[in-house]
Amino acid sequence: MKISVVRNILEANDRIAQQNRDLFKESGLMVINLMSSPGAGKTSLLEKSIDALKGDLRIGIIEGDIQSSQDAERIARKGVPVVQINTGGACHLDGNMIRDTFGEFNFREIDLLVVENVGNLVCPAEFRVGEDFKVMILSVTEGDDKPTKYPLMFRESKVLLINKIDLLPYVDFSLEKIKEDSLKINPDLTIFRISCKTGEGLEDWHNWLRKQVKTRKEDR
Amino acid sequence: MKISVVRNILEANDRIAQQNRDLFKESGLMVINLMSSPGAGKTSLLEKSIDALKGDLRIGIIEGDIQSSQDAERIARKGVPVVQINTGGACHLDGNMIRDTFGEFNFREIDLLVVENVGNLVCPAEFRVGEDFKVMILSVTEGDDKPTKYPLMFRESKVLLINKIDLLPYVDFSLEKIKEDSLKINPDLTIFRISCKTGEGLEDWHNWLRKQVKTRKEDR
Repeated sequence: MKISVVRNILEANDRIAQQNRDLFKESGLMVINLMSSPGAGKTSLLEKSIDALKGDLRIGIIEGDIQSSQDAERIARKGVPVVQINTGGACHLDGNMIRDTFGEFNFREIDLLVVENVGNLVCPAEFRVGEDFKVMILSVTEGDDKPTKYPLMFRESKVLLINKIDLLPYVDFSLEKIKEDSLKINPDLTIFRISCKTGEGLEDWHNWLRKQVKTRKEDR
Repeated sequence: MKISVVRNILEANDRIAQQNRDLFKESGLMVINLMSSPGAGKTSLLEKSIDALKGDLRIGIIEGDIQSSQDAERIARKGVPVVQINTGGACHLDGNMIRDTFGEFNFREIDLLVVENVGNLVCPAEFRVGEDFKVMILSVTEGDDKPTKYPLMFRESKVLLINKIDLLPYVDFSLEKIKEDSLKINPDLTIFRISCKTGEGLEDWHNWLRKQVKTRKEDR
């Protein structure tokens, strides 16, 4: 009984997410669903990436939080269009919530829309919002045992950003183990090692992202 | 419609959690529901606390994870009874899952049962499992903006353990801000600053815990 309720919710969401995706495609923008545990560095990454990319790409951001608008305020200071969704308790964003923001953006004037999901390594992986692909952040302070404990997130993501590598000297974390265990779950995963604090590794990520948006535009 | 389904699930869970709690009370054991983001240090804390307390208290552990039994294996090495629950996708433990472990423990031979919840700063706060109280861990690497973003967890907890204080020199985190914002949400919150790595602050937490178990036994 419980399972069938959940399935219905997931199926209904998939339909709405697909409609969102069709609209995004038609408008020619690429959409990323950005996920991580609380405090792994989603908003910090966006601040850095907006600074680095806004000369080349027109960026829009949707911020998902249970409550508060702190993250949207941080992003607004970067001078890009941003909408805050407050889920009011729900632990993930879904297709409907994204659809409700459509009036707030002019999609023809955006190349890249990033949806920052609620901080949660579990539920967001189950709900599409209309994204082209999912990107997850894992910070080295969370430990290197996460792929086997939260496999769905690693399986669903196209990119894994290993953040806070500036803290590697102070924590027990094996980059080799993470790489091996992540690729065992998802052999197609693209992995970047970054520090939003020092900037290390961000250039590779930005170059990759520029290329994705360019390829997407050429495909149309 | 969606809300009513969720409400029914929560109400049904509350009934089962209450039955669990009655049984725990009858058996004279204290039960803690331990919650945090992934990688904040729940299992590391348990390893330290078992070592420090097992001369005084008979401890049992329930490990909750979506998948894998790594945490239960770590705890088993400490020589205390432990049961692993794999939720198989569910992002939190509930009363039923805890009830299913009852055959695995002799509650009369345990003073303190700690239920380590799935790593998630959102959903576990909504589901009682039969605990006397909830304890949450926040690691300083997660940032000091968490109380306003995840208020339910702070509101539902009796204790906040601020972990990884050995990393304070390397991250932007204000202990004063966390204390102020947490107490604004929950004025009754008891706060400890700890490092599972260096051991700093753990003695205060263990003394507090010993006292809680003792008071509980005397109340019977």
